[in-house]
Amino acid sequence: MATRRIQRTEESRRLLVTAAAELFAEKGYRQTSFVDIAERAGISRGSIPWHFGNKLGLLEAVLDEQVQGMLTGTAAPPGDPLAQAMGFIRLPVTRLFITLLAEAVEADSPIREHYARLHAALRQAVRARITAEELPAGTTAEAFTVLLVGAVIGVHAQWRVAPEAVDLDAVQDVMRALLPAGLGRA
Amino acid sequence: MATRRIQRTEESRRLLVTAAAELFAEKGYRQTSFVDIAERAGISRGSIPWHFGNKLGLLEAVLDEQVQGMLTGTAAPPGDPLAQAMGFIRLPVTRLFITLLAEAVEADSPIREHYARLHAALRQAVRARITAEELPAGTTAEAFTVLLVGAVIGVHAQWRVAPEAVDLDAVQDVMRALLPAGLGRA
Repeated sequence: MATRRIQRTEESRRLLVTAAAELFAEKGYRQTSFVDIAERAGISRGSIPWHFGNKLGLLEAVLDEQVQGMLTGTAAPPGDPLAQAMGFIRLPVTRLFITLLAEAVEADSPIREHYARLHAALRQAVRARITAEELPAGTTAEAFTVLLVGAVIGVHAQWRVAPEAVDLDAVQDVMRALLPAGLGRA
Repeated sequence: MATRRIQRTEESRRLLVTAAAELFAEKGYRQTSFVDIAERAGISRGSIPWHFGNKLGLLEAVLDEQVQGMLTGTAAPPGDPLAQAMGFIRLPVTRLFITLLAEAVEADSPIREHYARLHAALRQAVRARITAEELPAGTTAEAFTVLLVGAVIGVHAQWRVAPEAVDLDAVQDVMRALLPAGLGRA
């Protein structure tokens, strides 16, 4: 019985995070209410604070799940983080990052700090796979990491605006040619 | 007299484009009205359609000016497009691109096509400076261009969210080490 209750609780949490991710992508963080999320998830509104404290707690859960999704991948072969990242940006829900970014850079944004943590987590994951001797002379792993995470962000932006103008497979080939081996050079 | 009128007309147009760029960056495209723009510019509202036709015409003028600003640069030494692009992203008004991007990727966005043209213009400017023999084997200039424009977009995003975590000068060094000579390797 207790196990079943835990399962139900975890299932509710998962449904709420998925609904929130979709709605944040569609309407933005600010414009999405607990009512919207509860309705989409088919779960009582009152359970949101119980699971996540407040709306920022829910945002954090959404971002965590997205980062985990990107880092562990799904369709891409394991051990190929580049293919995982490039596969991740094709998911419909990944548009979320563009919508939230615009809110995060607004003056006095309540979500800036949370969004900053997301970028930091991505950089940390990439940074951990780079060794200094693989880098161009005179450059730092930190800066290389910003560049690489930035490339994925900015390729995603261009593809999302004009998918017909951006060949993601060809871009992945260029990245692979330029990347240190630790990041999955073929 | 005619010359003076032309000067006044050009001055009005310039003030309106500047005001619109600021307001689009602050409030987004959709939330900005002709009244807001006219007030900020100190120019009669009626002159906006006269100059730009409609709001999309004004957006196009704003984006054109931004692209020209990025391509011709200001503080950066001429002939160094990388330094120009990296200098450009530090300008307050460049936040505009993040705000508009979020609107451009919304369903049925009226500005998507215009934003796509902006990305295309940036890619074209980069593409014109790349020769095939400078590229890694098995890669295309088109894909390299998407990657490079993407890197600038995504570095800007990270820096805008957390300037203390992103060393733009160090990132510029990495880019210079990886770039074909036509794009301004030192």
